[in-house]
Amino acid sequence: MTVIRAAVVQTDPRFGEVETNIAAALAAVPGDADLAVLPELFATGYQFRSRDELASLAEPIPDGPTCRALADHAAATDTTLVAGLAERDGDRLYNSAVLVRPDGSIERFRKVHLFWDEKLVFDAGDLGFPVFEACGTTVGLMVCFDWLFPEATGSLARRGARIIAHPSNLVLSHCPDAMPVRALENRVFTLTANRVGTEHRTGTELRFIGRSTICSPRFEVLGQASPLGAETVTAGLDLDLCDPWLSPRNHVIEDRRPDQYLI
Amino acid sequence: MTVIRAAVVQTDPRFGEVETNIAAALAAVPGDADLAVLPELFATGYQFRSRDELASLAEPIPDGPTCRALADHAAATDTTLVAGLAERDGDRLYNSAVLVRPDGSIERFRKVHLFWDEKLVFDAGDLGFPVFEACGTTVGLMVCFDWLFPEATGSLARRGARIIAHPSNLVLSHCPDAMPVRALENRVFTLTANRVGTEHRTGTELRFIGRSTICSPRFEVLGQASPLGAETVTAGLDLDLCDPWLSPRNHVIEDRRPDQYLI
Repeated sequence: MTVIRAAVVQTDPRFGEVETNIAAALAAVPGDADLAVLPELFATGYQFRSRDELASLAEPIPDGPTCRALADHAAATDTTLVAGLAERDGDRLYNSAVLVRPDGSIERFRKVHLFWDEKLVFDAGDLGFPVFEACGTTVGLMVCFDWLFPEATGSLARRGARIIAHPSNLVLSHCPDAMPVRALENRVFTLTANRVGTEHRTGTELRFIGRSTICSPRFEVLGQASPLGAETVTAGLDLDLCDPWLSPRNHVIEDRRPDQYLI
Repeated sequence: MTVIRAAVVQTDPRFGEVETNIAAALAAVPGDADLAVLPELFATGYQFRSRDELASLAEPIPDGPTCRALADHAAATDTTLVAGLAERDGDRLYNSAVLVRPDGSIERFRKVHLFWDEKLVFDAGDLGFPVFEACGTTVGLMVCFDWLFPEATGSLARRGARIIAHPSNLVLSHCPDAMPVRALENRVFTLTANRVGTEHRTGTELRFIGRSTICSPRFEVLGQASPLGAETVTAGLDLDLCDPWLSPRNHVIEDRRPDQYLI
C-alpha cells in the first residue's frame, strides 16, 4: 500500500501583494506533506483590470520569483508543490499551474478553459492536459473551470494520472459537490485547492467560495474546508484505490466506446 | 416558456412476468404527463441466466408485444413514453430503449456500455447516441450504466438533446447523486427511471437502489423517489433553463477544446 500525504491549502490572498501572498501560502503547507496544492493565481490575486496589468504581474516559468520561492520551499521541506500562477511567455499570457519537485525541477500546465473575463486578458492554454511523475506516482494538472469539462479530468486519467491537482479560484457554487463524480468516473483522487475572500477591482464583484475539497476514487469526500477563511485540509491517499475496475467486468477506461461518441 | 410535464416511473417488476410488469408500469404513468420514462428492461426483469433465456424473452422493435402495449398507451393518453426492453434483431440481442410517440412512431437506442454480467448475454449497442424530436423538443436516450461515461450524455447534448431520458436498473449507489453533474455540464434535464427490488437468479444477488431522479440544468434535484417501493415522481421541465451559457462568456459546448483533449 502506497499512501501519499496530500494537502490542499485554502488561502485568502490580497491582490498584487505577491510576496505576502506567497509567504502566507507556503507557511500553511504542512511540514509532513508529500504533495501540497495551492490555489489558482495564488501569488497575484485574480481580477486583473487589463492585459497590461496582468503582464506587469505575470512571470516566466521556470525563472520567475514565484517559481523560485516554490522551488526553495519544495527543496527545504521535501514536498512536491502544485500552484497556479500568471505566466508570461514572450507576448503571451497564460493562467498556468506548475508542479515543483523537491529536486527543483518544474513542470507546467496552461489552463485550457478560461472562465468569464479571463478571456479578456489571458491566452487559452495550448499544452493539452499533460501528466507528470511525482511522489512516486503520476499527477495530472488542471485549473479551476477546466473541471466543468469532463474531457479535462478524463484526458489526464487516460494519460495515467492517479491524482488530479486542481488549483482553483471558484466563484460558481457547484464544483466542490461535483468533484466526487470526476474522481469516480476516472477512479482518481482529486485535490481542489480554492481561495476565499472577495475582489471588486472591475465592475463585477467576485466572491470566492472556499470549500477546498479532497475526493477519493470511491466517490468519497476525504476532506473539505469551510466556505470562509484560510484553512488547510489534509488526507492520506491510498493509491491502491485507483482501481479502474468498477465491477469484475467493467474498466472505466477500456469500456469506453469512442466510435459511438460524438466528440 | 415551454414546460414539459415529465414523470419517472419507479417499478418493482417480477422476472419473466411480462404482462403483469407492463400493466403495473403503465398504470403508474400519470394521466397528464407529456413525457414518462420507465426503467431499463421494465417488462422482463434484469438478471438473465443465459443468452438463450434472454433470447426467449427479447422481442423485435417495433413489432413486439411490449412496443405494441407502449404504443397503445401513448396513443390513448397522448403521452410520449420512453422505456427499456430486451431487443432481438436476428441473432443479435440488445439492451435497448425505445421512445414511443402518441402517433405510434417508435425510435430506438441500444445501450452502449454494458454492465457486469450483461456482457455475457447482450451485444453492445451499435447506434451511437441518437436524439429524437418529441414533445416539441429534442430528447436523447441512454440506459443505466451509460451515465458513468460523460461522453454519453455529452454526445446527446451536442446532438441537441435538451432532455435525457435514462431508463435504469441501478445496483451501484452513486448515479442518483451524480446526475446533477451530468445535467449541469450539458445544461440539460435528466430523467432517471430506476427500479427497486432484488433478483437472485444467478450466483450474484442484485439489489436495485430505487431513488429515481429528475435533475435540472441548474444542478438541482427536482424530484427523487425513495430507495424502496414503486413510486412515480413528476416535475415540470422549463426548457428555457436549458441555456448553454454558464456565464456571459462561457458556452458549455462552444467552449470545448477537442484539439486539447486525449479521447
